[in-house]
Amino acid sequence: MKKVLVIGIGAGNPDYMTVQAINALNTVDVFFVLDKGEAAEELIDVREEICRRFITHANYRIVKVPQPQRDRASADYKAGVDAWHADKAAVFETLIGEELEEGKSGAFLVWGDPALYDSTIRILHQILARGVTLFDYEVIPGISSAQALAAGHKIPLNRIGEPVQLTTGRRVASGFDIDSVVLLDPGSGLRSLREHDATIYWGAYLGTADEMLISGKLKDVADEILRVREEMRRAKGWIMDTYLLRRDGTE
Amino acid sequence: MKKVLVIGIGAGNPDYMTVQAINALNTVDVFFVLDKGEAAEELIDVREEICRRFITHANYRIVKVPQPQRDRASADYKAGVDAWHADKAAVFETLIGEELEEGKSGAFLVWGDPALYDSTIRILHQILARGVTLFDYEVIPGISSAQALAAGHKIPLNRIGEPVQLTTGRRVASGFDIDSVVLLDPGSGLRSLREHDATIYWGAYLGTADEMLISGKLKDVADEILRVREEMRRAKGWIMDTYLLRRDGTE
Ligand SMILES: C[S@@+](CC[C@H](N)C(=O)[O-])C[C@H]1O[C@@H](n2cnc3c(N)ncnc32)[C@H](O)[C@@H]1O
Ligand SMILES: C[S@@+](CC[C@H](N)C(=O)[O-])C[C@H]1O[C@@H](n2cnc3c(N)ncnc32)[C@H](O)[C@@H]1O
Repeated sequence: MKKVLVIGIGAGNPDYMTVQAINALNTVDVFFVLDKGEAAEELIDVREEICRRFITHANYRIVKVPQPQRDRASADYKAGVDAWHADKAAVFETLIGEELEEGKSGAFLVWGDPALYDSTIRILHQILARGVTLFDYEVIPGISSAQALAAGHKIPLNRIGEPVQLTTGRRVASGFDIDSVVLLDPGSGLRSLREHDATIYWGAYLGTADEMLISGKLKDVADEILRVREEMRRAKGWIMDTYLLRRDGTE
Repeated sequence: MKKVLVIGIGAGNPDYMTVQAINALNTVDVFFVLDKGEAAEELIDVREEICRRFITHANYRIVKVPQPQRDRASADYKAGVDAWHADKAAVFETLIGEELEEGKSGAFLVWGDPALYDSTIRILHQILARGVTLFDYEVIPGISSAQALAAGHKIPLNRIGEPVQLTTGRRVASGFDIDSVVLLDPGSGLRSLREHDATIYWGAYLGTADEMLISGKLKDVADEILRVREEMRRAKGWIMDTYLLRRDGTE
């Protein structure tokens, strides 16, 4: 049987790697890396650095393939993402079919935690459901951006006995009810929330040398955050940021 | 200045330790361990195992103190927890004041991730707000039970573009609207939800040798889960379980 490992590498700091992930890395014969184009070059570098630093032998290969492009113009968000996942599934299936021999292990190194806003697990489910390419697989958790954010600000994500929601910029733009950690916000979510009575804990490039943290009342710091995120995005060519919104009220 | 480290050790498997947490462990002079009484003996053992296994020198001390008891009879949940935190803050402040010398590092080893349903960070905030005992502190993230659950079941926590909520058994008992990861449920939350149209992914003792996973339609498996969790709780004297509830509908 072929084996596929989905390994969470943590969201930014190679030191977020767990012992479990390092042990798993060392059993892998071939790493599958999706190349997302120039802007994300640094992100691929982190993966290669992790392999170099934590693998104690030289018997592994890295196979890079171009990442299928998502049609962001699609009017229907869900349909656009579904089509993109289907393209990715075709690429993954070819990789597993052609680049991985029987009895060998292949791996996808997933940014942060594979269970949060990442398509790898879902795509493996799709391939298995098709029933053409067979393999065993395993998932190894990693430190997510939400956790890197909380650690950076030295705060709990939840209030006592209260829920926390992880959500997307697109969804939070229509308002938020409970403490929310927002991922995948191109800025529009935050812009639309500027006037809410809430405290924000924002972080960009968490866990990396460029880590930035800003916190305060949303009304006071939202514009500064939007300015800084635009500046950094221009300077580096890409940005990754996350924030916790905490409605004002009880502590 | 004294330094206090809040180190996430992951939720069950010592291999969940990150490189960052291991490096931090090795800088600590004194570990503060709250003794929760016999049933949780195993949990303290994990902490001691982690120290033995990952610390490469012998220059550290472990200070154990009895955990203050929470008054579960209190009619007001929040007031009960507040009083308990105040008791803990007094204990922590004494530990930092008396067991930690200037220039030295003390650490609390927190189960899972320190940002999720754990009082350590909040208590340090309280002590610092009092302004009597001064120290620097740092938080190091760890793999949470929610992530161990998702990895065990090999599932994403979120659906495409949808939010995920982390919540408590007490809260979910009043119903749930979106995909919810439930922690801290003594069984009553699940019991009250038995008839909902949802899929449940349940896990107990995640990451440990006793790990158990059950999944299926809530209506089909809720009773089995309640039976198994009661059996295990009796056999071991304690249980830790978590589950994801996913409302039936779109994938
Ligand atoms: C496709 S999601 C992947 C999330 C990832 N699986 C995790 O566990 O963090 C990408 C989003 O995660 C957040 N993110 C990931 N890494 C980050 C970092 N180092 N700093 C800030 N935000 C980050 C950003 O909101 C980004 O838009
Ligand atoms: C006080 S909370 C602490 C959560 C912890 N900080 C974390 O990140 O997972 C304790 C709850 O976490 C969940 N939990 C912690 N470890 C677990 C494990 N190994 N297996 C299942 N549930 C676990 C249970 O729901 C338990 O009631």
